[in-house]
Parts: sequence; C-alpha cells; structure tokens
Amino acid sequence: MRVLILGGDGYLGWPTAMRFSGRGNDVAVVDNFARRRWVEESGGASLTPIATLEQRIEAWQEVSGRRIESYVGDLAEGTLAADIIREFEPDTIIHYGEQPSAPWSMRSVENAVITQQGNVIGSLKVLWAMREHAPSAHLIKLGTMGEYGTPNIDIEEGFIEIEHNGRRDVLPFPKVPGSLYHLSKVHDSNNLHFACRVWGLRATDLNQGVVYGIETPETKLDERLLTRFDYDEAFGTALNRFCVQAVIGHPLTVYGRGGQTRGFLNIVDTLQCVELTAANPAAAGEYRVFNQFTETFSVVELAAKVREAGAEVGLQVEVNNLENPRFEAEEHYYNPRHTKLPALGLQPTLLSETLIESVLSVIDRYRDRVIADVIDPATRWQEAPAAHSAR
Amino acid sequence: MRVLILGGDGYLGWPTAMRFSGRGNDVAVVDNFARRRWVEESGGASLTPIATLEQRIEAWQEVSGRRIESYVGDLAEGTLAADIIREFEPDTIIHYGEQPSAPWSMRSVENAVITQQGNVIGSLKVLWAMREHAPSAHLIKLGTMGEYGTPNIDIEEGFIEIEHNGRRDVLPFPKVPGSLYHLSKVHDSNNLHFACRVWGLRATDLNQGVVYGIETPETKLDERLLTRFDYDEAFGTALNRFCVQAVIGHPLTVYGRGGQTRGFLNIVDTLQCVELTAANPAAAGEYRVFNQFTETFSVVELAAKVREAGAEVGLQVEVNNLENPRFEAEEHYYNPRHTKLPALGLQPTLLSETLIESVLSVIDRYRDRVIADVIDPATRWQEAPAAHSAR
Repeated sequence: MRVLILGGDGYLGWPTAMRFSGRGNDVAVVDNFARRRWVEESGGASLTPIATLEQRIEAWQEVSGRRIESYVGDLAEGTLAADIIREFEPDTIIHYGEQPSAPWSMRSVENAVITQQGNVIGSLKVLWAMREHAPSAHLIKLGTMGEYGTPNIDIEEGFIEIEHNGRRDVLPFPKVPGSLYHLSKVHDSNNLHFACRVWGLRATDLNQGVVYGIETPETKLDERLLTRFDYDEAFGTALNRFCVQAVIGHPLTVYGRGGQTRGFLNIVDTLQCVELTAANPAAAGEYRVFNQFTETFSVVELAAKVREAGAEVGLQVEVNNLENPRFEAEEHYYNPRHTKLPALGLQPTLLSETLIESVLSVIDRYRDRVIADVIDPATRWQEAPAAHSAR
Repeated sequence: MRVLILGGDGYLGWPTAMRFSGRGNDVAVVDNFARRRWVEESGGASLTPIATLEQRIEAWQEVSGRRIESYVGDLAEGTLAADIIREFEPDTIIHYGEQPSAPWSMRSVENAVITQQGNVIGSLKVLWAMREHAPSAHLIKLGTMGEYGTPNIDIEEGFIEIEHNGRRDVLPFPKVPGSLYHLSKVHDSNNLHFACRVWGLRATDLNQGVVYGIETPETKLDERLLTRFDYDEAFGTALNRFCVQAVIGHPLTVYGRGGQTRGFLNIVDTLQCVELTAANPAAAGEYRVFNQFTETFSVVELAAKVREAGAEVGLQVEVNNLENPRFEAEEHYYNPRHTKLPALGLQPTLLSETLIESVLSVIDRYRDRVIADVIDPATRWQEAPAAHSAR
C-alpha cells in the first residue's frame, strides 16, 4: 500500500508511520510541527527527548533499511493537501493531523479559532483533494469518543436506528461534545459523512478513546525513534499524566469527584486498530464509524490503579481531588458499544498493574526532564478568559 | 432594545434592520458586502436596483427620522466581532452574516473553504465576543431547515427524545445536511449549543425554510429602501427564481422529478418570526431551536402555482424538468414540526395566487434588468469540479 500519514510527527503519527513502513508499505508523512510548537509555547516539553523528523527518518532508515518520505506544511493552507495527494498517490490516508487538545482549544479565542479552522478546513481540503486526485483512496480519520459526550442511552458506533411516531430511520448518533476541540471533530465527522455520501469517497472515522503508553515495538529499536510523551494539563492525557505525577511525587490531579468515565486504549492497540482498519477498507461511498477503545474506567479508578502500581515499585502516590476546570458530568451513565474493531480481529492489550509499572519505569528514566509547573490545570471552561492571560 | 444585525445589508438583514428601527429600537448593522460581491462575480446582479448601505441608511433616516448605525467588516477577521459587540452593547444580536448559498459552496474548493471558514469562524468569534462582552445578550441565529435533510421520521424542533435499549434521553436531532453550506450551519448550531450549555449564553437558532417575496412594508416606502432580490442559480431561491423565469418567459427550472419537498415562508413572516423571537428571548444558558416556515410544498407544486398565477396575468409559463444538479432525494417523507413560532403568536401570510401575482408584477417592473444566463444550474454536486471552471 501507499500510505500517507497526516500528522506523522506526532505521538501516534510517528509510531504509525514506522509500523506501516516496517510492514513493507510505501509511507509518507506530512506535518507542520505545530504540536511541538504548541507544547513549547505552553512552557512544556515532551518527557521523552525526541529527535527531529529528519533525524527520525534517518534513524528509521538505518534500523529498518526503509525510507519514509516527508512533506512539511499546514494542510489548511493553500493547495498543500491537493499537491501532496496528487504527487504521492496514496491508497490509504491516515489522518492524525489536527490540534488534539481540549484545554488548549478553550484557552483563548485565538486557540479556539486555530483549532476549529485548522482541523475543519484542513480536513475539508483533504476531502476535496481526494475527490479530485484520489477518489478511490481510503481515508482513516482519527476522531474521538468525546464527540458523543455522555448521553443517558447506550452509545452506538456512529449511527443509531430511531423509531419516532411510528416511523424508523438510521441516522447519525446525536452528539453533545464537551469542548471546542471536540466540536471540531464533530464538524469533521459531518463533513466526512457528506463526502462519502455525495462524492463516493471511502472513509473510516475512528472515534478513539484516551490513549496511554509510552512505547511501541518500533520506538524501542533506537532512542532516536522515541515518540513524544506529554504530561502537561493540555496535551497530556489522563493516564499518561497520572503516571508522570506518580513518578515525581506530585499528587494525582483528579478533576472533581472523578466519576467521569471514558474509554481507554494502549498505544499499541491504536496501531493495531489502524492496521486492521487499513487492511479492511470502507467500500466506495461508505462512511464507517468505529469506536476505538478497549476498556472503560472512571478517573478515580485510574488513579487507584496508578496508586497501587506505584506502591509495588515503592512510590507513595497521593490523590488530589481538584475543583473541576472543565464543564462535564462527574457521575453519568456510560455504555458505548465497541464491537466493530474486535470483529475485525482486534486483540486488546488491557491495562494491568505490570503495564503501569513498565510505563512508570520508562518515565523514571526521563524524570529529570519533567517540568512540574505545567501539570496543574490552568484552563477553566467557564472562567472569564482574561484570567488566563496572566499564566 | 439595542439590536445588532449581522449581515444587515442583505436580502433579509436590511428589511430586518428597518423593521426593528421603525419599532423604536436602537439598531446597528454589520456587513462586509460579500453578498454583493459574490453575486457580481458570478455574473449576476440583484433584480431590484439596490442602493448602497450608506444611501439606504440616509433614505431610511429621511423616511423614518431614525438613524441606523453601521459597521463595515468581516466577522471572521481579527477582533471585529469583539470590537463591535463591546462598543455597541447589544441586548439582541440577529445573525444573518453568512454565505447563504448551497450551490455557491459546492462550486470550488475555494468557495467551500470561504463558506465553512467564514460562517463557522465568524459565528465562533461572535460567541466568544458575547461571552466576554455581552453575556446576557440574546443571539438570534439564522440556520436552515436544510440542516436536517430529509429523514424518514418526523423532524422535531432541534431536539428529539430517543428511547434506546430501555433508556431515554433528549438529544440534538440528528442531521444529514445536503451541501457544504448546509454543513456550515450544522457546525454553527453545534457550536451555539455548546456556548449556551457551557458559557450560559442565550440563543435561538432559527431553522428557516426557503424565503420568498420581494417587498416588506418598509421597502415599499421609498425605492432607495428596496432589498436585494436574487434569481440566479446560486443565490436565487426556488420560488423567487421561478417568478423571474415566469416573467421573462424562461421555462421554470425544476430539478429532477421535482418531488423535493421543503418548508417555505414569506419574507414578511421572516420579519414577524424574528420580532417574536426577539420579544421572547431564550433564558440564560438556553439554546432553543425554532423551525421557521409556514407551509411545505414540493418543487412541482410550486411550479404549478407559478404557472397558474402566471396564466391569470397573461403569462405562458412552461416547466422544464432538468437533470438534478444536486444530490438529494426527489421523493421522500417530509413532516417537520413547526409549532414553537405559532405558539409565540406567528400569524402566517400563506402563499396565494394573488400573492404570486403581486410578486410577478413587481418583478415585471424590473424585467429589463434580468441577466438570463445566470439562471440555469451550472454547479453540479457530483461532477468533477474542473468542469465548472470553464463557466
């Protein structure tokens, strides 16, 4: 396959590029390095010392004998998306190329605009470019389980059959997303659905849960192949953040009562899901939605697991219930279906004490790199934004 | 009231400005004149000879003794939205300030991007500006019935109670919009809902049907107060377009079999609906959706009505079933609820033969201004876009 990876320098994009390259596919990555810049501008840095994209590609070639092509630029700008798709002629496009942080999107009107404009217009340009230059390619688009919110009914995978006043239809599952970032993903999903219906494109929307983990088989081959690992309030996700906190002796930052329940998956399962999806493409004109996670946990459950695993390796882990900076239900029903990826063969790597211990041990290797003052939540969903600018 | 009208130079915006001003409110309009430019760039022109905004405001002052303030600029650019809202301090914001044409949004990737970026980012900046500078103001946002598409179940007003696997919730009504323009309105609606839920703003989303009509009581006061009237394939809406075609002897352009059924309303009812909505604002934190139309017709029914009314005034009207340029169902169930505006007191002006005759007679006054070659559909939803550039 010819696989184009949008956002191929990121936490998931880079390991995905190596995985597909290692399997013998022709791989190109596109990135504008915005994630590196945003994290730095927020005063943070990847826990892992990451090489430049150029160095990564060099190292990968040394290790694997295989070359990954690269394009640098912003998908929302000019004709970049069309130029790359016309030139590279992908059969599969894996799209991670978006601003991925909910708190970052809520920090200022500028961030809100960058998030919605960059994500929605970038993806729209990819869709139009596919229509013109790669109408048979399969788009694998990373969405998020956060698009759904926490409805009081079971969450289906993208569509729901509704009976209403004696009539029936199968319609998109109604979504109540919890941040301007999550909204940008909902907008994307609606545009994708349209592009498949009307232009006959093929797309799979992966509504992914919260990803945790620091290594994949490929990142372990050489330190220059490490992927980034964020733990700050904006770009660090729950479990990754808790693990860093545990290692440096910072109380775990549970927001509110911590009853918020979410889907989670290991980074190695992200790779597995994306591979399974690529190997089983959507049909022409088909817009598929897979809910991509392997298990659900509440935030307090996660914190307890980290505390227990920490105790095993001699860490005293405290848990701190902070005032919730977000606007979200802290106790709610949550039963999202996730059967489509298992039906394709997904073999989950479930969260275990051993696994957390191994994450803690890798983090410990880089503990001197931790910048502690980006850990506590500073972005509040409902506070007047002026209060943030002092940060 | 202090009423800020976004898109206040447009087909509906200008009559709305006069209506609210005439009722004794302090009115300001914002416009960037994009609609005038887009129609001209497409080779068309308003059927009615429209004055500049400056001339209109002058004429209105002569006629009514009341001054309408004006701001010129693009809501999606820089800090314009925030600057205006901070300075004018509106209690009511009526938002027509968007690219309003489905065919125009489908014509090229540039148009698609202008539509989604301008509409979504412009509205997002208005919401953020309200959060900062006018958190108690009531936003009346023009959406469209086209957001829903044509589901096989009754369409509710914004939200639907869903029972699923023995549990219930009231959730946003699932939407399957039919163009990139309609999608931009869905994105807006999702952002609005969020701003009300999370920031406590108050908003009413008016999912409007197809508006027809050429005059309001205010536009009749002076020829310089006329509002624009479009009949081209992109900016002309079904009934208005048919009436112009009838007058100049062009066969009515029915797309496909013409079984497409839509909600319609008279421009005077748009004003009435917006007035009723402004007089009965949403509560703090409330996001309301009203379906704003008074009756439904299929396209063939509309064509027949125009033919009959034409015959009464001596016009021989032919009907031409063209290959449908759009992607839409030509036979479908359509039963949208529209009870919330009548409950506030809406007294509909229904479509009658006399009414069509009166529209035909006003059009006849300006028949020499008609540019016939912008009438036939040139934008095709599914055709390779390269084919359009020759236009």
